[in-house]
Order: sequence, then C-alpha cells, then structure tokens
Amino acid sequence: MQAVKKILFVVMDGLGDRGCKDLNGFTPLQYTDTPNFDRFAENGSSGIMDVISPGVAPGSDTAHLSLLGYDPNKVYTGRGPFEAAGIGLISRKGDIAFRCNFSTVNDKFELTDRRAGRVKAPETTELVKALNGMVIDGVEAIVKEGTEHRAALLLRGANLSPDVTDADPHELGPLPLSKGRTEEAEFTASVVNKFVRSSYEMMKDHPVNLERRRKGLPEANILLPRGAGSFPNIIPFREKNGMAGACVAGVGMIKGICGICGLDVIDMPPECTGGLDTDMIKKADIALKALDEYDFVLMNVKATDISGHDGNAKQKCAIISRLDEMAGHIRKNMPKGLVIAFTADHCTPVEVGDHTGDPVPLMIYAESIVKDGAMHFNELDCSKGRIGRIRGHDLLQICMDLAGRSEKFGA
Amino acid sequence: MQAVKKILFVVMDGLGDRGCKDLNGFTPLQYTDTPNFDRFAENGSSGIMDVISPGVAPGSDTAHLSLLGYDPNKVYTGRGPFEAAGIGLISRKGDIAFRCNFSTVNDKFELTDRRAGRVKAPETTELVKALNGMVIDGVEAIVKEGTEHRAALLLRGANLSPDVTDADPHELGPLPLSKGRTEEAEFTASVVNKFVRSSYEMMKDHPVNLERRRKGLPEANILLPRGAGSFPNIIPFREKNGMAGACVAGVGMIKGICGICGLDVIDMPPECTGGLDTDMIKKADIALKALDEYDFVLMNVKATDISGHDGNAKQKCAIISRLDEMAGHIRKNMPKGLVIAFTADHCTPVEVGDHTGDPVPLMIYAESIVKDGAMHFNELDCSKGRIGRIRGHDLLQICMDLAGRSEKFGA
Repeated sequence: MQAVKKILFVVMDGLGDRGCKDLNGFTPLQYTDTPNFDRFAENGSSGIMDVISPGVAPGSDTAHLSLLGYDPNKVYTGRGPFEAAGIGLISRKGDIAFRCNFSTVNDKFELTDRRAGRVKAPETTELVKALNGMVIDGVEAIVKEGTEHRAALLLRGANLSPDVTDADPHELGPLPLSKGRTEEAEFTASVVNKFVRSSYEMMKDHPVNLERRRKGLPEANILLPRGAGSFPNIIPFREKNGMAGACVAGVGMIKGICGICGLDVIDMPPECTGGLDTDMIKKADIALKALDEYDFVLMNVKATDISGHDGNAKQKCAIISRLDEMAGHIRKNMPKGLVIAFTADHCTPVEVGDHTGDPVPLMIYAESIVKDGAMHFNELDCSKGRIGRIRGHDLLQICMDLAGRSEKFGA
Repeated sequence: MQAVKKILFVVMDGLGDRGCKDLNGFTPLQYTDTPNFDRFAENGSSGIMDVISPGVAPGSDTAHLSLLGYDPNKVYTGRGPFEAAGIGLISRKGDIAFRCNFSTVNDKFELTDRRAGRVKAPETTELVKALNGMVIDGVEAIVKEGTEHRAALLLRGANLSPDVTDADPHELGPLPLSKGRTEEAEFTASVVNKFVRSSYEMMKDHPVNLERRRKGLPEANILLPRGAGSFPNIIPFREKNGMAGACVAGVGMIKGICGICGLDVIDMPPECTGGLDTDMIKKADIALKALDEYDFVLMNVKATDISGHDGNAKQKCAIISRLDEMAGHIRKNMPKGLVIAFTADHCTPVEVGDHTGDPVPLMIYAESIVKDGAMHFNELDCSKGRIGRIRGHDLLQICMDLAGRSEKFGA
C-alpha cells in the first residue's frame, strides 16, 4: 500500500498564448529559455487542457472552480456571489449577491454617468460606511467597495430569490425598476428598489459628494445592483475530497473563489502583490511551507496575465524567465513524493489582450509517473505529451489518483 | 458495401502501470520485449483510454461494464448485485441483492469475529444448503457462498426496496438492525432482520459449527447482509448492439458481469484458471473458436492484475512476455477481417499494488484501419497514437463502426 501524498498546483495566470509577431511567430513560452520547466517536462507527463471546454474563454472565477474539481456549468450561479467573494464579501446560504456600480443620476433619476467618473477608494470606502447597516423589510443589506467604481451587495434575510432584473439600465437615461421574474421574486425586487432609493438618499449630500460637486466631478450618488445570484451550492473542498486545502494568491478574486470552495486563504506578506513586481520565490516558499500543514495547495501567480492584458510579449517572456527560476527553486526545495501540476487558468494571448479559449499547457510531475522523455514546456510540445487533451475539472482527480487519494469505483 | 465483421476484445487485467524503480523507471510494458504486440501496433491504431473517466480507479465490475459499452455512472447499482453475479447468483428485475459475511456472534448477539475465522468451502457450502429454501413474509431468500467467508443473498418477492441499511456493524460489538431509509423500504428491512435471526437459528448448532466448536475455531453462526442493490437496468447486449456476445474468462466476477449484460459465458477447461498459471494459448484458442458462433467475444486474462497486486515487477514482465506470445498465436490463427482490440480494464501499478485511475494503453487492429506506423505497445507510445485519449464506454462503438456494424445517426 503506497503512502498518501500531497498535491501542489502552480497556476500561472493567463500563461498560455498564441504565436506573436514580436516573437517571430512563436509563443512567449516557446520563445523563452526555460531549463527548469523543461526538466520537469522530461521527468513528468505533459498535455493540454480545456479549462472549461474547447474554445470557451474562462473567467478567473470559473477557471479556478474548474481547477478545484468543480464543474462550473453546474455550480456557477452568476457573477454576483463570485465577484462579492472576490472582494472578500462571502455569502451564506440564502443570501442574494449583486455586483454594483457607484453611478451618477440627476434629480429626475436619469443615469448621467454609469461609473460616477470612475470614483474610487478612499471615497468609495467612506460612502460604503454610510450605506452599511440598512435593514429593509427585515432584509439586511451588506455593501463592500471593490476596485474603482465597483462594489458588491449582499441581501440577507428570509424568502429572497435571485430571479430579479438589474436595477442598472446599462446605458444613460431613465433608471429601470428591478422586477421579479417570478411571483416569489417580487419581494426581492421591491427590496432592491428600496435599497437603490435609500442609497441615493444617503449619498446625495454625503461629504464625499459635496467635495466632488465642488471640484466639478460626477457625484457618486446612487448604487445600482445587477447580476443577482444565489449562494452557490458548492460541497466544501475538504468534504468532497478528504483533503485540507489552502490557497496562496495575491489577487482578491482568486482568494474569494478559493474561500467559497472551503480552502484556507493564507495571508500574504507585502512583497507578494499579485502584480508584476511580486516576489515569486517568496510566494513559492509560502506554498511549500503550507504543504507542511495542508494536503493540497493552490498557488496562483498573476503576473503573466497582466502582461497578456498589456499586450506586451517581451514583458511576458521576462516574467516567464522569472517563473522558470521559481520552478527551479521549487524543484530544489519540494518535499519528497509531492505531486505537482504546472498549468494556467486560461490563455491571455498578448495579441488579443484578453482571455481566450485556447487549451492551456499542463505538466504533472510525481515520483512514479510515466516519463515523456525529452520535452519542453510550451503550447506545442505539451500537446504531444502523454496526458493528451483533458478537461480542467478532471485535473484534481488525476492528481489525487497519483497521490494515492482516489477511491475505487466498484469492486 | 463492406461485409459485417466480428470483434474480439483482449482484456489484459490490470496491464497498465507506472514507472517502476525495479525496471529503471520504465513500466513493465516498456521494459519487456513484445515483438508481437509491436507488430499489431505498427499495423493498427493506438491510443490511451480512461476506462471510467480521468483519474477514477475502476473496479473490475465497473470497468467491464464500461468496456461492454455501458456507462457505469448510469447502470451501476452498487456492489450487491454485481458481487452476487460474480459468484454466479444472477438477480432478476425486482430482486434485491446483498453481499454477506459468515460471522461469529455470542449469545447476546454481539459480533466477535466478522469473518468467522475466515471459514471457507466446503464448510460454507454445507451451511448454505441449510440456509436455502427460506421464505419470509412471502419473500424468497436465496444464498450462495463466495470465496472464504463471503456469500451473496438475493431477496425475491413483491414490494422490495434497496434503500435499507447494513445488518453488518463493520466492527465488533452489538449487531445493528437493518433499517429502511424510506417508508417503503421498512418491509425489506424487516425481512432482512428476520433472515439474519433465522440464519443464526439454523446455523448455531449445525454439524459444521459443532465441529468448529470442538476444534476451538470461531463458529460461522450468523450471516450478515450489506451493500443492498437492486437489479441493474441493463439493456441486454444483443438487444443494444445487435450482436451475439460471449465471454471467455477464468474469474467469477468477470463472468458474472458479462452474464448480467447478456453475454454467454463459455465454460473453461481446468487449465484456464484465472491465475498466474493459466494456459493463455488455450484461452486464446477458445476465444477464436467462439468467434465461429458469436459476433463479439470478450476475453479476459487475469494474471497481469495479480502480479500488480503482488507488487512484483519482474513477474509482471514475465507474464507480459507470455501475453505477447499469445498475441502472436492470435495473429497466426485469427479469422480474416477480425476487428481486435488489445487493452486493459484498469491499471494495477506494481508500486501501488491496487487499481489506479491512470489511462490504459489501447491498440485496435482491423483490415483497413489507418496505420500508426512503427510503434510499440506501452503506456507512452500508445499516447502518441492516432486514437488519442478516449473513454472506455466509447470503445465498443468504435470497434462496431470498424466492423461495419454502426448505424448512421441522421441521413
């Protein structure tokens, strides 16, 4: 009987790419010299992976759900609860979550700026303080600010439904009322409408807006909820897989998703920023240390995604070089018997500047895994590896099997 | 218009493996010289196969269901009916099947030995004779002995339900009563409880137990049912596929599964044991002869699985050599136009000593199949073959299509 092993996922955000004109038609992974990745590729098994399904461009939220073994087509209940989780507002069963914008309306309730001049913290933080504490017909409204003009709203109380239309018109002009799509949802819609009206009453003469008015800036005088979603029916990671899991990430959205799934979110030191300047070696050390205590660790490095969104091929290559050094550091310091997967949550090709549905490269290393032999870690070579082409939500099961943690189906 | 062809599956049980320390990191299939397999690989198409789904370790029962074209996630109703079938006790629609142990209780109905000192045939055969013939509240109880202390029970009658808890406490101490998980199942639970009590009455002073008492051995004085399952809703193989099918196997479990699916189970001569010493050439001859009469034959050779469970890499290599000779024999003697698939029901890596969820190697040969060219039959080379990575329950359809037996979907 083999000993049960631990599992590390190294998720390099937006790593996969397409051929780049700036790199003679090669991808950043093909173009960059990556001796440490290649060493793992030689001694492990490689493949490519449709994180959701072929050609579907994943969001960071659905992608990480899939990597954690959940089928996003079954558990993803809309952006509201996941975006709320992404900024640290974790919903409970029965809650309805919304994405919101701070917006500007005139006194006829016509939308004049959907983003209130891209108002941001600390102004939004002050406004949120004024909004919180509201109870409407027995329903508690909990608000938290996000990046720039964005926020999230949780409604908490009895008899709530996610089947309500947006209070945000998505274009300038008169504000719509939220409506229930079913009879049961009419109560929720009325709470949303009362909340929107109260947000105006509480913010229109708030010191933050008096100051913006003085400066001639659009006032953040209303909060408009959209994208209602119920608490996702997610079986906690530990209950589902019998493993204690932890998340090592710098970005709020990733922490939020992992938190919803029941992973412990490890606190990051200031050097691990989730930005281009992040200290990857430090992050790897935190992930390796977490493996002392946890059975499973998901580590996310965001920098590759940022350079993809920036459309900067050379910058992406430079980040890949640093990731390769990080892989070398992991190789030297990882515990014996670790099952480790290097992959991405999606592709962010520099010539697209956004997520695409291309399959991502994948490489798994474990002690007795069948070796692919001489291989490189990139979009082309991985497609020739012995894993073939798999789906994102199968990865965890495959690694659990390699770690001696899968249960036999049948006798 | 092509002629309709016949199909042979050569299932080498537990054949797939991982890299072995004893074999310089190679798998037994990579390490062993297999000129006959390689000849098939050269002239056929290769691939890898997730018998259930990626990373899921199949039991022999679920694996063979999948190879026979059934989706085990839909048709597998628990171990009871399949284990019963495995020892030749085939359930009918409406029956409830249980796995059972002969166990030892004291006069306070406390379990003192869950396996009754691993009692076995011919003692269990004698005890079963005493138990059979019982009718409880109109329900017939049919018992058959299995290996060692194991047995199976069928309840046959009206209004039975599989939603009952085990009568086996799974640990020493007081016996639990079986309970219905639903109101409709309460009648079945009461029958189970009466059966358990009667088994004690009938066995406690049975000559077999008087003799065991005299020898100081734990008495087999009660039969404890567990793992209730209803008759699986399986469309018979012939009706589903329009082919008469036969099974050539030495192991009871495989015969049982094939029988449940409606294959004819061919009687084996004593040389075909299902063990390490089995006569593979003889078995191949029986399979080839069965193809005179049947459209489809599934042949299972168990020996590779046994050496995997034994953790003996060199033994597994020696068996693979003999399987390769068998493949050469099949090559010389097979009928023209045969579609033949060489594969496994699951991997049993020698360093794990149990089934794992790694994909199994697969090789299909048919007269006009697209050739892979120079290839070897092993876990790595097959992954580079043109079949790619498929699911187990798709294999039969692929082979039926090559045999001119698939129906067009659409016009």
